[in-house]
Order: sequence, then C-alpha cells, then structure tokens
Amino acid sequence: MVSIVIIGSGNVAQHLITAFLQSDEIELIQVFSRQKESVSHLISLDKIVSDYDEIKEAAIYIIAVSDNAIGEVSSKLPFENRLVVHTSGSMPIEILDSKNRRGVFYPLQTFTKNKAINFKEIPICLESELADDFMRIEKLAKSISNSVQSISSEQRKALHVAAVFVCNFVNHLYKIGNDICVENQLSFEILKPLIVETAQKIIQLSPENAQTGPAKRNDTETINSHLNFISDENQKEIYKLLTKSIIDHGKKL
Amino acid sequence: MVSIVIIGSGNVAQHLITAFLQSDEIELIQVFSRQKESVSHLISLDKIVSDYDEIKEAAIYIIAVSDNAIGEVSSKLPFENRLVVHTSGSMPIEILDSKNRRGVFYPLQTFTKNKAINFKEIPICLESELADDFMRIEKLAKSISNSVQSISSEQRKALHVAAVFVCNFVNHLYKIGNDICVENQLSFEILKPLIVETAQKIIQLSPENAQTGPAKRNDTETINSHLNFISDENQKEIYKLLTKSIIDHGKKL
Repeated sequence: MVSIVIIGSGNVAQHLITAFLQSDEIELIQVFSRQKESVSHLISLDKIVSDYDEIKEAAIYIIAVSDNAIGEVSSKLPFENRLVVHTSGSMPIEILDSKNRRGVFYPLQTFTKNKAINFKEIPICLESELADDFMRIEKLAKSISNSVQSISSEQRKALHVAAVFVCNFVNHLYKIGNDICVENQLSFEILKPLIVETAQKIIQLSPENAQTGPAKRNDTETINSHLNFISDENQKEIYKLLTKSIIDHGKKL
Repeated sequence: MVSIVIIGSGNVAQHLITAFLQSDEIELIQVFSRQKESVSHLISLDKIVSDYDEIKEAAIYIIAVSDNAIGEVSSKLPFENRLVVHTSGSMPIEILDSKNRRGVFYPLQTFTKNKAINFKEIPICLESELADDFMRIEKLAKSISNSVQSISSEQRKALHVAAVFVCNFVNHLYKIGNDICVENQLSFEILKPLIVETAQKIIQLSPENAQTGPAKRNDTETINSHLNFISDENQKEIYKLLTKSIIDHGKKL
C-alpha cells in the first residue's frame, strides 16, 4: 500500500481523490482543503483537514492547487525530507520548496466538475529529483493509469502548450461553431457527430492526412464566399489566419 | 424500393455507394465515373458508366462531384424533369440546371478514403424545390441515417462555415499539437486521450461550460510563458489571436 495525502480541492484534486479511492493499492490518508465542504461529498469529514499542523505522515504528498499557489503551499508544509509532488503542466519541479524531496505528477487531461473520467487512459507525466522517488510515483501512477510517462520539465512545458492548442483552442472553435448555429436558427446538435468523428480520425490517421476542407484544397472561391458570409470581425480574423496557416503549410510539403 | 444513380467517384460518392449498397430500401442502378477503376472495388463493372448517354432511368440522381463541377455535370445530363440532387455544403440549390427538378442531399461529415464511417449518426441536410420531391429524398436519407434535417440553402451555408471551424480548423490545431510534440521528442500519442475527451465533453456540456485553460482563467503569467516558449511565428500568431478571442468572449459574459 502507498499512503498519500492530497492537498487541494479543485477539479484535479477531486478527480484524483475519486481515482485513488477506487484503487486497492493506495491508501488516501487525508485531503487538505480550506473549505471542508468542497470535498465532503467524496471523502468522510474526519479525513479532511484545513490546518497544516494536522497533516499526517504519508509516503507521498500531492499538491493539486492552482499554479500560482503551489510554491506557497509547498513552503507551508510543516515537515522536511518527505516526497512532495505537484500536478501542474506548466510549472517546473523547482517551484516546490526544496526542504522536501520534489517530484511532478501531471495527468494530461481536461478535467471538468461533474463529468466522470476514465483515468486508465490518461497519460500521467512523471518527474522526480531522486531515482528512488521516481519508482514511488511510478507505482502511484500505475495504480490508476495504463499510460505512465517519464517527462522532463522542459518537455512538460511543450506538452502543456500543445494541450492548449488541441484542447483549449479547439473548444473555443466549438464555441464559434455553436455561435454560428445559434445565429442561423440551427441546433448545435447537428455539428456533434462531425466534432466526434474529427477527433476519432486522429486515432487512425496523422493530422496531416486527416486534413480536409476548402483551405486544404486551396479553394479560393469557397473561402471568399465564407468570408463574405461571416459578419463577426473576430470570427473573420480567425478564419483568415487559420486558412492562411493551412495553405502555407501545404506549400511547404 | 427507391432507384438511384450516383454521379461521381470521390470521397463522398464512395461513402454513399457503400452506405446505399447496405440498405434494403435502395436500388443503386448505376454509378457514373470517368475512371471506372476508381469505384470498381465497390460495385460491379457492368453498373459503372462513363458516358452520359448510358445513364439509365432512376427515381433520384445524386451528383457527388467537386463544387465547381456540379453546374456543368447537371447541364450535361441528357434528360429533363427528373429529380437531381447535389451533395455540397456550400453550393445553393440553384447551381443545378433547371431543366430537372432540383434538390440537395448534404451529409454533414468529414469523409476520408479508407476510413469506414457509420452513416446512421450522420446528419443529412435536405432541401428541394417541390414538396413531393422532399418526401422522396427524405425516404432516401432515412434509409441510411437516423438524423435527417430540413435545411435551407442559407442555413446550409452557415452550417458549412461552422463545419470549417469545428472540423477543418480543429484538425489544423491537432497538426500544430503534433508539430510541437515532434519538436520536443514527444510522441503525439500522449495527446490523443485529451483530444478525444475534449470532443466527448461537448456531448454533455456546452462549449462555453467546457472551456478551460490559461486564457479562460486570464492567467497572463502562463500565457506569456507559453508565448516565450513558442519559437514558430505562425504558431505564436494563432496562440495570440485565439487567446485574445477567449479572453474577449469572457468579458462579454
């Protein structure tokens, strides 16, 4: 059994609590949360603490708080030389206070409250200062995921940037599609099979081979007709830039 | 039984041939294709014609060719007053020669050669000049899909623009994610669960509620750190524009 304490109560913390509670190999000793009620639907009240001095001994401490709070939280921990990891995609391992042994446990996924997720398929990106500690967090990661990766801080930053493109920006394009539907008395439902298939295609094909549409064909007639159709200046600017990027990329091939 | 002839041999034509051959309610009489070998793996050679005068009588003729060829193909058909539909998202119904009864049969999906697709879930957007003809193409559409929609030419254009955002542009963002991985010795495989989950989220949540990431949080520190990390000027420009769009949208709420 690996004993752990989770510090935090947001999206990532909540999904980790749920995942670790389902694992036979992990003992979730405590959750640290300023507002006890934010995690009391997941774990019994006697295991929730909001005072640093109440935190018990554990093999691994997981800090799952917002990026700008990680450093402060790690320095407030009232112990030394224990294994402490953060869960952030964009923060280096050094953000953690050096009084403890440091590591990173970054699950690469988009977490939303009230939407269950299958952790088995989520890549967990690991990093540690000491080789022994890597084995500890690897065991922890493998208890909930089948995709455990060794990723350096620099690579993790690259992954986080890539994730912004393929997740956050992609979702914003869904939002624009939704807005165009609403403006034209169409249900966004009609676009959903296309959205899912576009993502599914990537499992079998490279994004390069999966590319379709007027920009890929350099079909200027359709592109201009679309630009005439779009009245929103922001949408028009995004349409132009992404079309140009697809066309320029085609020229490089 | 509804008898049909399919004119064309590209992606859409091939997927339609495959779908209609599986339906008991449809008799696929002929496929018109300039190069017989491009569809000979799907249908027997005696049913493939490449001369307009060989085209037999059928209840519905489906023109599935590239947008700029629809008008010419429809005017070359050596008969009048029959029901002829095109399958384009961006062309109005009037692009078809008026010597025949006109309609539109637009399957809203991204079709790739050698990737099978389940037609049952694909929305098929229908339009016709005559009410009687609408019933005919509706029966045709329902024989292969559970999602049949009545959509005007103007609405179809809006849908096509929206589809460019949620499919073609989204795929290009996958391409950028792929490029960032390759540059940093990372496998694109690591991003795939995130890509699929980002699409799946939309089934349950509105794109507005599904939005996450540094732009949504207006986290300027992470945004600037990402912009410093990105060396490619084109990627940087896309990152800036989409980040600004997400932030501006948040201000309007």
